[in-house]
Amino acid sequence: MKNFILQNENAIYFECKFSCDNVIFLNLEKDRFFITDARYTTEAKEYAKKCEVLESSNLIETAKEILKKNKIKKITFDPNDFSFASYTKLTENLKTEFIAKENFSKLKRIIKSDKEITLLKKAAVAGREGFKELAKFIRKNGFNQSEQFLYFKAFEKMSQTGKLDISFEPIVAINENAAKPHALPTSKKLKLHDLLLVDAGIKYKRYCSDRTCTSHVDFENFSFKREQKFKNEKHQKIYDIVLKAQLNAIENAKTGMKASEIDKLTRDVIEKAGFGKYFIHSTGHGVGLDIHEFPVINSKSDVIIEDNMVFTVEPGIYLPDEFGVRIEDTIVMQNGKAVIL
Amino acid sequence: MKNFILQNENAIYFECKFSCDNVIFLNLEKDRFFITDARYTTEAKEYAKKCEVLESSNLIETAKEILKKNKIKKITFDPNDFSFASYTKLTENLKTEFIAKENFSKLKRIIKSDKEITLLKKAAVAGREGFKELAKFIRKNGFNQSEQFLYFKAFEKMSQTGKLDISFEPIVAINENAAKPHALPTSKKLKLHDLLLVDAGIKYKRYCSDRTCTSHVDFENFSFKREQKFKNEKHQKIYDIVLKAQLNAIENAKTGMKASEIDKLTRDVIEKAGFGKYFIHSTGHGVGLDIHEFPVINSKSDVIIEDNMVFTVEPGIYLPDEFGVRIEDTIVMQNGKAVIL
Repeated sequence: MKNFILQNENAIYFECKFSCDNVIFLNLEKDRFFITDARYTTEAKEYAKKCEVLESSNLIETAKEILKKNKIKKITFDPNDFSFASYTKLTENLKTEFIAKENFSKLKRIIKSDKEITLLKKAAVAGREGFKELAKFIRKNGFNQSEQFLYFKAFEKMSQTGKLDISFEPIVAINENAAKPHALPTSKKLKLHDLLLVDAGIKYKRYCSDRTCTSHVDFENFSFKREQKFKNEKHQKIYDIVLKAQLNAIENAKTGMKASEIDKLTRDVIEKAGFGKYFIHSTGHGVGLDIHEFPVINSKSDVIIEDNMVFTVEPGIYLPDEFGVRIEDTIVMQNGKAVIL
Repeated sequence: MKNFILQNENAIYFECKFSCDNVIFLNLEKDRFFITDARYTTEAKEYAKKCEVLESSNLIETAKEILKKNKIKKITFDPNDFSFASYTKLTENLKTEFIAKENFSKLKRIIKSDKEITLLKKAAVAGREGFKELAKFIRKNGFNQSEQFLYFKAFEKMSQTGKLDISFEPIVAINENAAKPHALPTSKKLKLHDLLLVDAGIKYKRYCSDRTCTSHVDFENFSFKREQKFKNEKHQKIYDIVLKAQLNAIENAKTGMKASEIDKLTRDVIEKAGFGKYFIHSTGHGVGLDIHEFPVINSKSDVIIEDNMVFTVEPGIYLPDEFGVRIEDTIVMQNGKAVIL
């Protein structure tokens, strides 16, 4: 594909190592154009690689002028990347044929370069540091704090008090709230022997981290470690099943497998234990510049897993109105096997 | 307009007083449908007013089935609300004609109800409280703190440590960074006699607040009040011009004026003072469920200002590489005049 047009911030960053929140990027056979407004042109000229920076107060019109001038016959776009309004304005009175190809940028990014893996590793390490600091806070001051306050503290610790961007809004959920995979924080307060689920990540040089821990609450020894001793027996039983499912996938994932086979590695363990119907989402998703990339690890995906793919392994069991357990790590495929980042 | 389809979270909330991040809302002549996935149906059934809640794993397909079954000939949609991909799937093999009408939901919401104004007022009050708490922190501990840290503190104080959502990422900018209207926080540190610009807001029951203050930094008396005494004479001069511009608009805005006439009330003062070319944005924007609504207060808008419109008045002067001043309040038009919320 020689000619393509992008609007998505991360897709554009991938092409030229700079991006901003108001830009159209044109990749033509001979030239590349970074079209943005006056706020961003100075930095774009300094950082955007191998492309001409154009200042415009009407990005779509400028893009159309370039397509006309260069007599471009066909250009690829991602129909998820443009609203119907933008598409209409872009194609109006223009001879260029627009070819819709869903997710073509994300598909290009499915196998990470070694440089990208280094950045993803650094993101994962910084993310783990955030979890450690949050655990320290919970040991010291966690008792009787609300989910809302702990959500705020998760943001504080993960972001290193504002230094790093977070890759998504943290999920902080106690007991029955953890039974909702995307719980919003409430005024519910943390008590001894509760179950606490935290799902959080940060960005390091725009690359995302993603991790979920489910922990037993004990204000002396609280941690986000894999080894958890719950006071409540049912908590422990479900935790052990989810952990077994996760480790089964991490230990047995191999390059050459289909994504659906990796999904089966977690799902089989949970199904055999009799909780299949409470594992209500896919096993994982790719992670990179976007928090959700390819490959998707679900029961339907035929994608062949290759070295340098980076994705989450995050089985869960959600017992409505009781509690939920999810254990998630982001892994990279290296030398045929999964390695936790 | 009897038949319309929505995907936007706030537009849907406006219709039925409930919303979530995965929903299609169909408003037909006789029936209204809230189509969402299993995660949200329980709450939707409890809170969504005057509509039937349908659970679906493919919202677009379910919407199409309803349109077919009800033999809907025409339906209005906002082309900004649907990606080209969604639009294509929605209209494929369907006889219904889709009529594009940009911003029709936001246009419906341009005049607020008294109930909405009460909520916007509460949002403004809570927002001001956040500014006060941030000022208190700066007096006590602000010296030598980075913009990044102060950005984090702005989030903490505005959100009441996680209790309220923020309406946008706060802007915290010192001296030359304040010359960029949308500055990102850096490691630059706060010192005595600096100029500090903070733009921040929260949401109260989904309704947004929006305010910007520019202040002189003095660790004994620091405040976000209108009255500011700068050590630096140029800071003071520019501040006084911007303040005069803002007050001129707030004091002289009347219902029946065009939005462009209100823009002129700020712009004229700044132009007369010789800084017109450094006032590089519009005077304001509507505020409601979205942080940017109608009316737009710029030099081109012919919209007639009416009672119960709510919008910001936020002139600014930005001197590149030196500093910037912006003063913003959100006002409501009442009894023909502007009242600060």
